[in-house]
Amino acid sequence: MTWLDEIRWDDQGLVPVIAQEAGSGDVLMFAWMNREALARTAELGEAVYWSRSRQRLWHKGEESGHIQTVHDIRLDCDNDVVLLKVTQRGHEPGIACHTGRHSCFFKRYDNAAWQTTDPVLKDPEHIYSK
Amino acid sequence: MTWLDEIRWDDQGLVPVIAQEAGSGDVLMFAWMNREALARTAELGEAVYWSRSRQRLWHKGEESGHIQTVHDIRLDCDNDVVLLKVTQRGHEPGIACHTGRHSCFFKRYDNAAWQTTDPVLKDPEHIYSK
Repeated sequence: MTWLDEIRWDDQGLVPVIAQEAGSGDVLMFAWMNREALARTAELGEAVYWSRSRQRLWHKGEESGHIQTVHDIRLDCDNDVVLLKVTQRGHEPGIACHTGRHSCFFKRYDNAAWQTTDPVLKDPEHIYSK
Repeated sequence: MTWLDEIRWDDQGLVPVIAQEAGSGDVLMFAWMNREALARTAELGEAVYWSRSRQRLWHKGEESGHIQTVHDIRLDCDNDVVLLKVTQRGHEPGIACHTGRHSCFFKRYDNAAWQTTDPVLKDPEHIYSK
């Protein structure tokens, strides 16, 4: 029985993962990991997710350069959600979102509508063109 | 088309929800909402989740008294994850976890094992006995 066996993987073999910026406490993004992704994250000290759309391992930052250094890996009471404390690399301030924003959670509920609150820090065309 | 229609509900009609403490930035818990739960959360200003185990709406704190006042409801770039900024009520410091801890994320990966880091603030028997 290893630490990976203690996780309650869902029926697709995945676990939800929250990435939180260690310095600011900002919640940056939400993604999924399978067993191999979590094992590699622990080994590398960098976030490796499972891309459900591409059905493959996704070393965050592999295309954008926006690597996440992982300081802390936490597991919840039910053993079915992972929380990472990370430093978002590759741009200052950090860009975790594919839209070029700091965080993926840039839409805010206000008066029965979603309002975009946070600025684009870098044009996605320039993030992914290199 | 309402703000609720913009959400990409999963094939069970649910969306994952992260609850973050507004004051400290601590990630407290992770749960799910269906359409009605999110509508009631926005209306009440208190977190109402969908309990997958009980298959019913779950007004957080209904048994424990540990209500979550919601200050901010955010949606991610893909419209499929919700982030709440909350104040955890009913105990000081706040208890979000059914184990009587501040946060559900009290297990930390260390040296290929999960170590429990955070103290129990109140015995669960006393939380749920009233």
